[in-house]
Amino acid sequence: MRISELVERTGVPLATLKFYLREGLLPAGEATSATRAEYGEAHVRRIAVIRALTETVGLSVQKAREVLQLMDRPEDDLFETLGKAIAALPPSVTPEAAEDYPRAREVLEKLGQVYDPRFAAVAQLELALAAAESAGIPLDDRRLAVYGPNIRAIAEFDVGSIPREATAAVEYAVLGTAVHEPVLIALRRLAHQDVAARRLGQGSAKAGAPTRPRPKGR
Amino acid sequence: MRISELVERTGVPLATLKFYLREGLLPAGEATSATRAEYGEAHVRRIAVIRALTETVGLSVQKAREVLQLMDRPEDDLFETLGKAIAALPPSVTPEAAEDYPRAREVLEKLGQVYDPRFAAVAQLELALAAAESAGIPLDDRRLAVYGPNIRAIAEFDVGSIPREATAAVEYAVLGTAVHEPVLIALRRLAHQDVAARRLGQGSAKAGAPTRPRPKGR
Repeated sequence: MRISELVERTGVPLATLKFYLREGLLPAGEATSATRAEYGEAHVRRIAVIRALTETVGLSVQKAREVLQLMDRPEDDLFETLGKAIAALPPSVTPEAAEDYPRAREVLEKLGQVYDPRFAAVAQLELALAAAESAGIPLDDRRLAVYGPNIRAIAEFDVGSIPREATAAVEYAVLGTAVHEPVLIALRRLAHQDVAARRLGQGSAKAGAPTRPRPKGR
Repeated sequence: MRISELVERTGVPLATLKFYLREGLLPAGEATSATRAEYGEAHVRRIAVIRALTETVGLSVQKAREVLQLMDRPEDDLFETLGKAIAALPPSVTPEAAEDYPRAREVLEKLGQVYDPRFAAVAQLELALAAAESAGIPLDDRRLAVYGPNIRAIAEFDVGSIPREATAAVEYAVLGTAVHEPVLIALRRLAHQDVAARRLGQGSAKAGAPTRPRPKGR
């Protein structure tokens, strides 16, 4: 298809597509004349991925390019490639090389998971744990005993759905990690409201005409 | 204690404490002379809450003031008060009054939860679901069947730990919602890495000298 059709198919303005081409995010089409190029379904899919990385996830063009390069040329060790791609996601925490993360280490040991300070999420966990601590609601053992296994069940499902093929795997891992985080956060807040309404015996009666097809307690 | 001692106890600079006083975030101390005031433990705790709201959660002074006012003067309906306080948290999504959120409604109906478009998190969920959809990994029924119950178990624990007293309840709900979100996100990313390392049979061997006290499969 011509670039004008690509604009129609994706809803992305021509100027933006040209920007993607210029920045090397979108591979060039196949040249059919000096001024024309032909684009295919792979371009349509790629544009959706670029949109997700830059708009939804909020990556800079530089970070998005890094992630796209990992998708295009995954390294031999898929685990290492996934790690690098995920590390590009916000919040970007720059762990210092030799640093130790005592709170994160303790939590990971309790969960029976590897503690490797080079994982970006370890520094992220350390910061989050320190913040919880100073707010006066640390991740104590009782809370960890609930958060740990439930989050692990979610992660098992996520990883279980990962495609076999390396490029698709990196794409799925990056987008799945990023786009499902806000889904999980919103679901938790809504579950809080639902549980609180039941326990406090309030609110739901005032909630206008809510749909509640099958009350489901636990 | 004098304000200089308050600086020492909390580690917050004098200029910042004066700013909190001026902005009405921190209640005035008890005047003991024309130029001196006495502060107590309640001020120490309040400063920790202000720090958590403005630094950790990243609220503006205006939003922090709103939340603190709800803590100080909770309304008769605790459920309503909690809802207003939580709605002040980022991401701030301003739902339009009469709008409908079809994706969020469908998900909440499947979960057997109330759908009330006035809840801020409903608009948030709608946005997150739309983003997941356009990234090509929608929250389908299989994923919802895993995410739903596990997130609900987490929310049951959260709400179960809520203090009885209204001011403490609002403080716990706001801080607990906000500071544990990054903890959950980091735990999920680290669980991904752990599960992927086991399934891909890679990475962990290269991870230097990780501590893995008791391998725990699922």
